[in-house]
Amino acid sequence: MPAQQLSAALPEGRVVTDPAAVQGYVHDEAEWAPYEPPLAVVRPRSTAEVQAVVRFCLEHRVPLVPRGAGTGLSGGANATAGCVVLALDGMREIVEIDPAERLAVVRPGVVNDDLRAACAEHGLWYPPDPASAPWSTIGGNVATNAGGVCCVKYGVTGDYVLGLEVVNGLGDVVRLGRRTAKGVAGYDLCSLMVGSEGTLGVITEITLRLRPQRPPERTVAGYFDSVVDAGRAVSLVAAAGIVPSALELVDRHCLEAVDAWKRMGLSVEANAVLLGRTDAPGAAGDDEAARMLECFEQGGATWAAQSSDQQEADALFAARRLAYPALERLGPVLTEDVCVPAAKVPEMLLRIERAGAAHDTLIANIAHAGDGNLHPLLITAPGDAEARIRAQAAFEMIIADALDLGGTVTGEHGIGLLKRAGLGRELSAPVVEMHHAVKNALDPHGILNPGKAIPDRSPG
Amino acid sequence: MPAQQLSAALPEGRVVTDPAAVQGYVHDEAEWAPYEPPLAVVRPRSTAEVQAVVRFCLEHRVPLVPRGAGTGLSGGANATAGCVVLALDGMREIVEIDPAERLAVVRPGVVNDDLRAACAEHGLWYPPDPASAPWSTIGGNVATNAGGVCCVKYGVTGDYVLGLEVVNGLGDVVRLGRRTAKGVAGYDLCSLMVGSEGTLGVITEITLRLRPQRPPERTVAGYFDSVVDAGRAVSLVAAAGIVPSALELVDRHCLEAVDAWKRMGLSVEANAVLLGRTDAPGAAGDDEAARMLECFEQGGATWAAQSSDQQEADALFAARRLAYPALERLGPVLTEDVCVPAAKVPEMLLRIERAGAAHDTLIANIAHAGDGNLHPLLITAPGDAEARIRAQAAFEMIIADALDLGGTVTGEHGIGLLKRAGLGRELSAPVVEMHHAVKNALDPHGILNPGKAIPDRSPG
Repeated sequence: MPAQQLSAALPEGRVVTDPAAVQGYVHDEAEWAPYEPPLAVVRPRSTAEVQAVVRFCLEHRVPLVPRGAGTGLSGGANATAGCVVLALDGMREIVEIDPAERLAVVRPGVVNDDLRAACAEHGLWYPPDPASAPWSTIGGNVATNAGGVCCVKYGVTGDYVLGLEVVNGLGDVVRLGRRTAKGVAGYDLCSLMVGSEGTLGVITEITLRLRPQRPPERTVAGYFDSVVDAGRAVSLVAAAGIVPSALELVDRHCLEAVDAWKRMGLSVEANAVLLGRTDAPGAAGDDEAARMLECFEQGGATWAAQSSDQQEADALFAARRLAYPALERLGPVLTEDVCVPAAKVPEMLLRIERAGAAHDTLIANIAHAGDGNLHPLLITAPGDAEARIRAQAAFEMIIADALDLGGTVTGEHGIGLLKRAGLGRELSAPVVEMHHAVKNALDPHGILNPGKAIPDRSPG
Repeated sequence: MPAQQLSAALPEGRVVTDPAAVQGYVHDEAEWAPYEPPLAVVRPRSTAEVQAVVRFCLEHRVPLVPRGAGTGLSGGANATAGCVVLALDGMREIVEIDPAERLAVVRPGVVNDDLRAACAEHGLWYPPDPASAPWSTIGGNVATNAGGVCCVKYGVTGDYVLGLEVVNGLGDVVRLGRRTAKGVAGYDLCSLMVGSEGTLGVITEITLRLRPQRPPERTVAGYFDSVVDAGRAVSLVAAAGIVPSALELVDRHCLEAVDAWKRMGLSVEANAVLLGRTDAPGAAGDDEAARMLECFEQGGATWAAQSSDQQEADALFAARRLAYPALERLGPVLTEDVCVPAAKVPEMLLRIERAGAAHDTLIANIAHAGDGNLHPLLITAPGDAEARIRAQAAFEMIIADALDLGGTVTGEHGIGLLKRAGLGRELSAPVVEMHHAVKNALDPHGILNPGKAIPDRSPG
């Protein structure tokens, strides 16, 4: 029996056998993405144990599905039939924080917020801050190239990955990348692994670039009559040459859901809230905040002000973070993640409204608006099969609109299962072929998370 | 005759026939890297013409060697026997500068400084600034992932590449990457192309991320009795959490060579000069400059001051830029490009001195010291074959020392021909295999700059 051989190859307790516990490892948070019963769920504690599992999968030609905390929103970590789910959430050691080199070395199961807190003790900062930061792991963040609120100024997870230890598709433990500030030695296989969703290797250690702690942020808030008005303000901020440290949009549906849950009283004020931040130091920060405020006003804000009260500012950002769980209280939420050029944000928001109307689907919006990265949240009543079909049609319509505006099907959530068809529309056939060529080169036996992250080859 | 078929497939004048002109296209600036007579040199004007050349090479199994301005320092653009040299320096169109999206679209032959100037007209800034910026092309910068002075704060060429148009190893014209601020759609084939030195595809168009123009820089200069003292000051700057916008080291040999050429009178002042810059705005910049000055003094500067005179500051940086051509007046210069962790800079500078002594070779030093990216310049008398052998031995010793200190064989110049053996020492055998697997996947017929950029497979 393969499953028994797997247990025998690992220390006691690594294979999860309790059926209820197994159920916690079979899918991520992507709504309606399919998953199937795995052969086994394994929680390794070391690179050697990961290697043993990969070698087992190679020997028996068993698919391997790596996962972090399972907070993904595209189905990339969902179990496929008869696979081994490799849950890396137990490998949570911060191996090293080196203040002189401004880098950290961590195991994949370290939780994002835990790393940020550990860095802060050294006066350092790890910027990438996906909404899942309190739960999601650095390994998962790297595998999906996670984004967050700070990206508009500070980039995404991949911008902080200097080096990786990976168990590759042949079962070798390899080191990719470097520890130095610069380096161009060989192909950038490290960046190739980032965002490849476990289809090219299993990440067992990550060397991350850090920044010094930054100055405190100033917050500018604006209320708008419509998301399109707010989108116009976003375009004005970009055109003014301002690089905010955050520029987030929250619409009325989100505000109402947060109010219903937390009684913050936001939704009586506006149909859309825009939250800008700047962390430029001293007078430059004052100036940038003032210029951002001007853009909000020019964009048509019904009210806008720089927050003089840190608590008030934090409450507004808390509302933004709470929007997703607040909406989930209403029913299943299908999360979009398109990204369009900044100037196309108002037009895209308009098209999202149209997609909701065309398919009779309630769509709420939160957005990393400064990046053009929009998260339309498609909300359905629980158990309503027809609403689900309509929502999925709206989802595809939004993808088509984003591509039509020169955008991409995924700004930060990744392809997983939900966006494979969309990716097939975004990439030309020869580029899809290049993806398969790389996949086959690095995973010649096809065991690494097969069926995820890349589109099917086009027929013929 | 293949060469005639090539001419026939292209508009008149694209194939360079004048023997003297051909000689200008057969090697880059890497000292002593081998090159051989090409079958032909082609200067295409469009993507379609590049595609025609790639298809010719595929049909006839002829090696293709792409090149930009030929300012490379590793031999990556050197002609191999019977190859087609594809000189992209004629494709110099700036297709688009989009201030709202803060991006530029350029053809590969656009000269780095020309792009910077064009961006400045829109209040925008293209940061990567290799020393070759007045001559080198963006295509070559991307193919080698070129660095420069600003990298210590602003990263390298690859950090600015959003998207590429590439003619791939099957002769298809493909688009990789995106135009949006964020995007995780599929494998990061764009980063894979960056720095691959033409071995995975021929770049025909580049979409670049830009920044708003930054505040004026302040310059802090320090004179030191030794490069090791200066290196200590560099480590202190890093440990203090300062991120300078430049931190450059120039040693006595360089200062003397510049003085001999330009009569600037620098070498009577110091054995090593450290040049720091900050572009933090307003009072924050004053503060950062003051803290940097303190680090210089703690590191043992015999004199250090913030330059109040922009002309004086520019003269010091001009001396740094002139160091390399000034040294070349003395004889052939073999350029090293190791990168070590910032804390190891003093130790590495000491080892470079030892390597020079051990092999009786004059070694001058310029360094992007803040990055730990050192450029030992090995100088030999013209025509002295024994000196050349000694210099090459010192070159290999420096590589071994950099690896021993946790560094890399190349910080920004790339592998080309000169560093292939060194790269083989830096990478483990399974990682070398992964390089070949990727190379074979994307260039299955082996026509794209074969024999460059990646090490040979280890025997057995």
